[in-house]
Parts: sequence; C-alpha cells; structure tokens
Amino acid sequence: MVTHLANVRYLSGFSGTAGVVIVAASESIFFTDGRYRQQAREEVRGARIRIRPGKSALAAAAEWLGKRSYQAVGIEAAHLTVAERSLLGAALGRGRKLVAAPPILDELRMVKDSGEIPLIRSSCRLGDELFRRLLQVLRPKVRESEVAGEIEFAARKAGADQMAFPTIIAGGARSALPHGRASLASIPGKGFVVSDFGVILAGYCSDMTRTVHVGRPPVAARDLYEAVREAQQAALEAVRPGKSVGEVDQAARNLLQRRSLAKFFTHSTGHGLGLEIHESPRVAAGQKEQLVPGMVITVEPGVYMPGRCGVRIEDTVLVTNSGCEILTASPKELIAL
Amino acid sequence: MVTHLANVRYLSGFSGTAGVVIVAASESIFFTDGRYRQQAREEVRGARIRIRPGKSALAAAAEWLGKRSYQAVGIEAAHLTVAERSLLGAALGRGRKLVAAPPILDELRMVKDSGEIPLIRSSCRLGDELFRRLLQVLRPKVRESEVAGEIEFAARKAGADQMAFPTIIAGGARSALPHGRASLASIPGKGFVVSDFGVILAGYCSDMTRTVHVGRPPVAARDLYEAVREAQQAALEAVRPGKSVGEVDQAARNLLQRRSLAKFFTHSTGHGLGLEIHESPRVAAGQKEQLVPGMVITVEPGVYMPGRCGVRIEDTVLVTNSGCEILTASPKELIAL
Repeated sequence: MVTHLANVRYLSGFSGTAGVVIVAASESIFFTDGRYRQQAREEVRGARIRIRPGKSALAAAAEWLGKRSYQAVGIEAAHLTVAERSLLGAALGRGRKLVAAPPILDELRMVKDSGEIPLIRSSCRLGDELFRRLLQVLRPKVRESEVAGEIEFAARKAGADQMAFPTIIAGGARSALPHGRASLASIPGKGFVVSDFGVILAGYCSDMTRTVHVGRPPVAARDLYEAVREAQQAALEAVRPGKSVGEVDQAARNLLQRRSLAKFFTHSTGHGLGLEIHESPRVAAGQKEQLVPGMVITVEPGVYMPGRCGVRIEDTVLVTNSGCEILTASPKELIAL
Repeated sequence: MVTHLANVRYLSGFSGTAGVVIVAASESIFFTDGRYRQQAREEVRGARIRIRPGKSALAAAAEWLGKRSYQAVGIEAAHLTVAERSLLGAALGRGRKLVAAPPILDELRMVKDSGEIPLIRSSCRLGDELFRRLLQVLRPKVRESEVAGEIEFAARKAGADQMAFPTIIAGGARSALPHGRASLASIPGKGFVVSDFGVILAGYCSDMTRTVHVGRPPVAARDLYEAVREAQQAALEAVRPGKSVGEVDQAARNLLQRRSLAKFFTHSTGHGLGLEIHESPRVAAGQKEQLVPGMVITVEPGVYMPGRCGVRIEDTVLVTNSGCEILTASPKELIAL
C-alpha cells in the first residue's frame, strides 16, 4: 500500500495531492478523492481508478482492503501517520496484519530510467539559465530576496512547476549559513554570495549552488574558494559505478583535510534527487550504497567560517558507465562581480 | 510531545524545519539538531534547548524521555509517522504508554492572540497589493504562469517568506477547475479568470481569490458573478460570535440554491488560517464549531461549470465581537479587463 505521494506518482503517473496505490497479487488500484476524477483519468496508467464519494483516498483504500481477504498489508511506515494507521487498522479488523514494507520504491527510484533522465537533464538546463539570469541581477545593495525573486520569475516564465526548495541567496557573513534562505538583507559591497537553487520542471528536480565574490577577492578568499572547488572536483572524480557514496564523501573531505578545512565542512556531500529534491542515496560519511549507472546525485562540499563567510559549489550529476556526467554546466571559475 | 512544526513554532517561536517540544509537568524542552544551534538560541522562548550531536530532534527527545519516568506520553497522532512512533517506542521501552493526545494545540491556535492578528493583517494587506499588481499584468495572450510569476516577484520584493500555496491563475475554461494552478496556458481573449493566492509574511498566511472578466461580460456571466458575490456576502454576514461555522457554509449554499447553482458549488466555504494555510476550523456543511472573536477564517464560495467557466470570491476575515472584519480589502465589483 503506497501512500507517499512521490511513490504514487512514480508508479501511476498521478501528480495531484491526494492518492494511494495498492499493488495486490493480481491487480493494481489507484485511489483518490472526487476533486481529482478528471485528472486521474488523464494521468493514471497501469492501475484501475477508484473514487468513493465523500471519502478520502486513504479511506477508500481502507474500505477496499476491508472487503478483501489479504492476511497482511505492507505499509510505508515512514509515510503513514499514526492516525492514518489507526483508521486503516479499524477498517481491516482483527486477525490481519499491517507490516512495515521494505523500501522497495526508494530503491527502484534511486536508479533513473530512460524516461526520467531527459527530464532531469532539462530541469538542470533550466537551472543553468537561472544562474545566467542571477549574474545579471546580483550586485551590491540589491536585496537577497529580490535576487531570488528574479530567478524565480525566470523559472516561472520558462515553465517550471515551482522551485524545488526555498531559494538560498546568502551574502557576506550570511554565506556562512549552510541554509541561508534569501532574506531582506542587501548584497554587501564585497564578499562571497552563496546561491543555491533548483526548479521542478515536468515533475523532476534540479539542484545547483554557485558562490561568487562581490569585488576583487583577496588572496585568502581566492584560496578558500579554490580549496572547495578542488574538493568538489575530487568528489566528482570519485563518482563512478562500483564506488560507494561514502567514498565520494570521503574524497571531498580528504581534500579539505589537507588544507585543515575539514572541520568547517559541516554537512554531507550530497543526496539523490529526482521526483523529490532529497531522495536516496545519502552521499554521506560511511554510507555503503554502491553507485550504479542511472543514479542522479548532487555533489556539494562547502566550508563555513561562522560569522565570516562561506563557500559551496554544487552540481547535479548522472552516474554513467564509466564515471559521471555533470548535468549543471555553469562555470565554476571564481566569478568576481 | 509536540512534533507538528507549526505547533512547535506556535509554542516556542522556532521557525526552522526540525524541532520537537516536550511539555512536561514541571518543564518544557525544545529539541533540534546541530544545524539549528544558532537559530534556536535566537528564536526559542519559554523552553530549554537541547541538542544531541549526531541525533535528530526526535531521537534527542526520545533519548530524553527514555531517562525519565513518565508513565504515559501524549503524541500528535496526525503528525507522527508509524516509523517515528516505532523509534519512540523502542527508546521508551516496555511499560510506558504512547497515547494520542487530544487536539489541544489546534484549539489554542484557532483563536488568534493580540500578537498574531497584526501579522495576519499585514499578510492580507500584502495580498491586496499583489491583486493591484495582478490587474496591471493580466491581459489576453499572457501566460497564466507569467501572471503568477509577476505577483510572486512582487511578494518577494515586499519581503514575503514565500507564497502560502501554489498560485492559482485559471483563465477561460480552466476557471472551472477549483484548483487550477497557473499553467503555461495563455489568458484567453474573453472569459473569466480566477486568481487565488496568498503569502506567508513573518510566518503568517493570507488567502484571497478574485475573479475578473476579460472582455465585456455577457449578461449570463454577469449574473453568475453576482450570484457568487451575493453568496459570499450572505456568508460574511453569517460570521459572528455564537454562530457555527456550518451556518456560515449554509448561508452561502442557500443563496446559490435559490439560483439553482448549489450543485456547482463543489467545495466547502472556507477554513481557518494562521501559521498554516489550512487550520481549524473547517467552514463546511454540518460543522458545529462555534465562532468566537479572534478566529480568522476564509469565506470563499464558488461555482464551477465543467468545461465552461467558474467564479470564486474569497476573503480572509477576522471574527470580531459583533461580526467580522474583512482583512482582504480588494474590490469585489466585477472588473472587466
């Protein structure tokens, strides 16, 4: 019983906000509510559509299951609330079990198919366009929120469904915040500006970060930037089939360690993305997941000097047969504005 | 044990994306993870902050509870996943109970306090500004997504945190979709355009809908519009302390019934809003919740003629001692563009 909407979409094609899929031994059924009758008819493939007037998708699914004799129902424990589980349990009655299903869909979705890769590629290409727009509008005294607004507007005009996550534009000392959402602060007259953004285009996400410098960068700033850039390059070179995601993380961390910067790299190196901005695998220390062709991950080391400045460089990449293809093609040489 | 982020924010002031509050007999503790150390220190009031290196907020809270002797822990069953509940259960061990808590916080949040009302007022005022901007850019051949992009950009420039929900701009036959998110379709040369949008400003939502007509409206279109406008007015007049939310819904429905339009009014009349775009109470048929001063709800009847056209008019209103105050002040006379 699939209740996580991204998994529902992956299995059925349905892009609305209320849906459940049951994959039974001999049939697949898609449940939604009355608001989505038309949309379900247009989008859902490979499953029978069932709508029960006045009932939610979950209640309709529970009712359907209640009339069947399945002894056990696999649920997505990370995507079903305690309250929903109670509703389901009551509908099923005693003697039937709800069991936490293994993460089958996470694993399926981790390796993108030939229909998905072109969509992610297009989404990344739009990301690159937004970066070109950003370079036109980013300048001292403009508010971070206005810079964000400009690229979000460009995304809208290019047909994006929405941004993939709250746009990060973090200038000056705010660049030291790993998640510095665009604020009302103005871009300062000098220093780093971290810009991290992505779109959802035709359902699929992109994610990229570039750090630029306002004014001529002092030597120390240039060195910091180059250290992160080399760490990112080292991690990119570690991306190939057979390597583990932990090794990709380690490659970035080793490079920064040699510069005594590893302690300022306070997050993991990346994450999978696709229908969701964060998917499996986690590209983090000690993770054993093996890279295989078709995986799409981000590679995004950063260093953050609290109260002073930060640098992050991030690409979305596709694992190929022999290494990786960088899908976000914007330049990574340090740009001084 | 409070795990719903909007409730966490309501209780503690914390606006990040990872937090848990435990309200125990003699103390209140706020849990988050290492990313939010600085932000928690700046924002959290009335609770001790606890961060456990390498642990999630929930794991830190579970660990804390595991060392205490509470016999029962109230959970938010609608805001805790089955997987999270398992983690919690394992940390607590046998002999201690997790019980579904009553919706205490939903009820508290339903009536806004003197700190919240000015924030909602400001958010609605920004909504009105966006409508003025919308009237400047809405014209035939412009894409719906571009109209949405323009008002979203204006929201950004005015300091909004983000939009409160995906902007709806639905022209021509698409106006018959109650949730017609702005698409790549162009605004047609004539017909209704439904625009439904809201912002989050300093944490608080606004929500409004206006329907305008491109070209001179034929008599039938004008009549349809006036029917919805009168239904909305009737519902607004039903908003006062002591009335139930069901009566507000009924007032709109009765008016449309007299015009034989009730069957085209396919959703409920409104909802509470505040930190979230949808909060208690549901302003829907048969709902018994009594209105009290300080509640903030939407009043948004609509009629939808599938394949043809639709009209919806929505305000955000504050329940006062004697009736209601309309917080979204944009004009409701039919505007022909």
